[in-house]
Amino acid sequence: MKNYTELSDIEDLQQLVTEALELKKGTSTLEIGKGKTLGMLFFNPSLRTRLSTEKAGKLLGMDVMVMNAGSDSWKLEFEDGAVMDSDKAEHIKEAAAVLSQYCDIIAVRAFPDLKDKEKDEAETVLNSFKKYASVPVVNLESATGHPLQALADAITISELKKKDKPKIVLSWAPHPKALPQSVPNSFAEIIQNLDADFVITNPEGYDLNPEITKNVPVIHDQNEALKDADFVYVKNWSSYDNYGQKLSEDRKWTFSAEKLKLTNNAKVMHCLPVRRNMVIADEVLDSENSVVIQQAGNRTFAAQAVLKRILEEKVKAKDLEGNA
Amino acid sequence: MKNYTELSDIEDLQQLVTEALELKKGTSTLEIGKGKTLGMLFFNPSLRTRLSTEKAGKLLGMDVMVMNAGSDSWKLEFEDGAVMDSDKAEHIKEAAAVLSQYCDIIAVRAFPDLKDKEKDEAETVLNSFKKYASVPVVNLESATGHPLQALADAITISELKKKDKPKIVLSWAPHPKALPQSVPNSFAEIIQNLDADFVITNPEGYDLNPEITKNVPVIHDQNEALKDADFVYVKNWSSYDNYGQKLSEDRKWTFSAEKLKLTNNAKVMHCLPVRRNMVIADEVLDSENSVVIQQAGNRTFAAQAVLKRILEEKVKAKDLEGNA
Amino acid sequence: MKNYTELSDIEDLQQLVTEALELKKGTSTLEIGKGKTLGMLFFNPSLRTRLSTEKAGKLLGMDVMVMNAGSDSWKLEFEDGAVMDSDKAEHIKEAAAVLSQYCDIIAVRAFPDLKDKEKDEAETVLNSFKKYASVPVVNLESATGHPLQALADAITISELKKKDKPKIVLSWAPHPKALPQSVPNSFAEIIQNLDADFVITNPEGYDLNPEITKNVPVIHDQNEALKDADFVYVKNWSSYDNYGQKLSEDRKWTFSAEKLKLTNNAKVMHCLPVRRNMVIADEVLDSENSVVIQQAGNRTFAAQAVLKRILEEKVKAKDLEGNA
Repeated sequence: MKNYTELSDIEDLQQLVTEALELKKGTSTLEIGKGKTLGMLFFNPSLRTRLSTEKAGKLLGMDVMVMNAGSDSWKLEFEDGAVMDSDKAEHIKEAAAVLSQYCDIIAVRAFPDLKDKEKDEAETVLNSFKKYASVPVVNLESATGHPLQALADAITISELKKKDKPKIVLSWAPHPKALPQSVPNSFAEIIQNLDADFVITNPEGYDLNPEITKNVPVIHDQNEALKDADFVYVKNWSSYDNYGQKLSEDRKWTFSAEKLKLTNNAKVMHCLPVRRNMVIADEVLDSENSVVIQQAGNRTFAAQAVLKRILEEKVKAKDLEGNA
Repeated sequence: MKNYTELSDIEDLQQLVTEALELKKGTSTLEIGKGKTLGMLFFNPSLRTRLSTEKAGKLLGMDVMVMNAGSDSWKLEFEDGAVMDSDKAEHIKEAAAVLSQYCDIIAVRAFPDLKDKEKDEAETVLNSFKKYASVPVVNLESATGHPLQALADAITISELKKKDKPKIVLSWAPHPKALPQSVPNSFAEIIQNLDADFVITNPEGYDLNPEITKNVPVIHDQNEALKDADFVYVKNWSSYDNYGQKLSEDRKWTFSAEKLKLTNNAKVMHCLPVRRNMVIADEVLDSENSVVIQQAGNRTFAAQAVLKRILEEKVKAKDLEGNA
Repeated sequence: MKNYTELSDIEDLQQLVTEALELKKGTSTLEIGKGKTLGMLFFNPSLRTRLSTEKAGKLLGMDVMVMNAGSDSWKLEFEDGAVMDSDKAEHIKEAAAVLSQYCDIIAVRAFPDLKDKEKDEAETVLNSFKKYASVPVVNLESATGHPLQALADAITISELKKKDKPKIVLSWAPHPKALPQSVPNSFAEIIQNLDADFVITNPEGYDLNPEITKNVPVIHDQNEALKDADFVYVKNWSSYDNYGQKLSEDRKWTFSAEKLKLTNNAKVMHCLPVRRNMVIADEVLDSENSVVIQQAGNRTFAAQAVLKRILEEKVKAKDLEGNA
């Protein structure tokens, strides 16, 4: 693994999940990160991603440096050829190249603006780091994807599933704010790589990008979709067609105990933070069906597996160099 | 020690002080914290608490992760059953449970609002972490107490006292802002557990919570109270009766060289930060009677002794489990 | 080296540069910083200084604690004798003394206000730390100097120079904001200690402090100054005579490919962050003549060499003590 900016960077999902679950046992001391530095750069707030990735790095023996872009440092310019007379003091070209000298891996979080679909889909921040950094880049949630979350989700399902081909439902839920599609996008993408009966349910107008959902059935009747579900991933997102808009706050979509009854005693998932009683009702979150905490716990091992892979690739590349 | 959220969590104060003074010698390398993570969460600013606790954790071999709640992460909801449609994105139930997966000990600072006595005394933030975290919780100053400071104070007195039963005076002083009662509360509480002739002096209307001060004499004439004092702890606090109000800024209560003369050449203490020439005059702070820097230095060893105790308890609990 | 607050703290520049280049090879594991703590305090934003110094400390085995003054902690009062009834909660006297108990080295960044020359030249923040701290102090860029940057610059020139006495030009460039003179001051100072043919070029009204530039020729015709240059250090600064003012934004001074042609195929330097197409044109920054990334990379080894020296001095002082 050279970078981990999108799910397609994973060559063998099942093996990576197995490796993460091995790391979760915490038996062996890993020294592969010793003397290596992980730099984490946040353009947006973070709790789980920040702490689980920092912890993952340290578990591998890495030094970790965390920086809030904007408040700790300088505002960045991403436009090529810009005459930099605005409030942006540093160009990504320099920032990425400089960080590459201090860090062995650079991890970046940059949310979308949800105003301009084309701009968000260009993934300017993430792709600029990938372009201008000379070290591997890890996506800590970008404009359109959250692959570390999706890997933790796959690990959690792998731990909990009771049949070879479980029914997994991704269900939209109401939220007071317009949210990115990054989490549902990456979840929809990774589940397509697992053996599962996968269905997405959301109100009309909320269909995700069809280039990501491909042939996954999208059902606009939530009750119908939930039938016999073994896993329900509840999550809000803003409209893709009516880009970045909040079209509905319909609380009939809130995932309640009543909805749970429609399922096959499903495990209920969410990436967190979750708006209680908007997205998922207290009665579900506080029940044994909720696995959101276990899911968040698996973030550490997802990050650890990814960082380990990247470090191993570096060692391999160096060995090859040595033999040349 | 399972948690350290209030002074009553200490079972044997004298032994803990002795242990802290042993740690201060810094002779033995401690490995008890190796592979363990301390998570520190700040809802308010901090200098001493932040750095001394981080240092204490590292001295024990721990990894330390520091986060500013609010700016680094999400706004937290503490109300049970809330329909989360406000600006608070995450409920304490999830936040505490998730942090418990990344951290072996969670330390939290959360000041009072000083608007609603009942609400502050409920210690919502600290108690919510205690309720919903599955790992030990340490109080880095809460609405009504600052037990790490009080322990450092007890250590400092233990180092400096020249008689078995010194006279210790807690003296109110003026301040431009209304401040919490947490520091004087915890000081009053810990001194009652030491062998001391203890007196509190403050203007009328500034008596601390009588459930904390109990039988400690409260004298409204500062000059009388200071007579023969071996230690004077100077500190401002807002009114408890007229809850959270600043009733006076009377500079006659500023601790000056003249006041010092009334004492038995007393050692002068303060938790810092101290408003010079409001709370304590330059001439006192810059004299040999001031022990505020030594006191701040002892914060490291207070925190180290507490964290060590908690880690030892964990090891013990695990051993018991192993034998069962 | 007891402190590193100004360039005159270096006793043997050539040897320090050699040592830094030795450290850059990264062959030997250094344990001199083990159990020692570096405290970094930022009153202003930072990317390179923050990360390279943190990395340097960790490469030496140190624990590193980073704090944003103001947002993480309390506002500081620097005035002697102040009656502290404003919004400044803590006096530098206490802050520096307390930090000295938690840290073995204190590093501070504090930019000038550029409003009052006398006040800025007093270097109140840096000098107050030097005065009241009981441990060594390192300058992470102060009101009038940036000695860690200058050392990295000297290292870079040492790596790249092709003749014993290269021609080095410090050239002013336009910028949308009024910037400090700290970087050009320290560069002008350190180059005077190297074997070089050194020239400064800037528009009239932009001459640097003559006490720093001394006998270095200042030429107001940029094209003339650039002739045969082996190194060009491009940098904006505000007026020293018309203190802190932006007198010109004349883009004829922007360092372009055309300007480069006037030189002896010069290496182009800048401390970063650099305003592209204002200070230096894309065509130059993206050419092989630009060494700004290498320069930024050398920040780590400059900081590492300085911290190592300071730690060695401490060991030496302790040994002397032991023998007394």
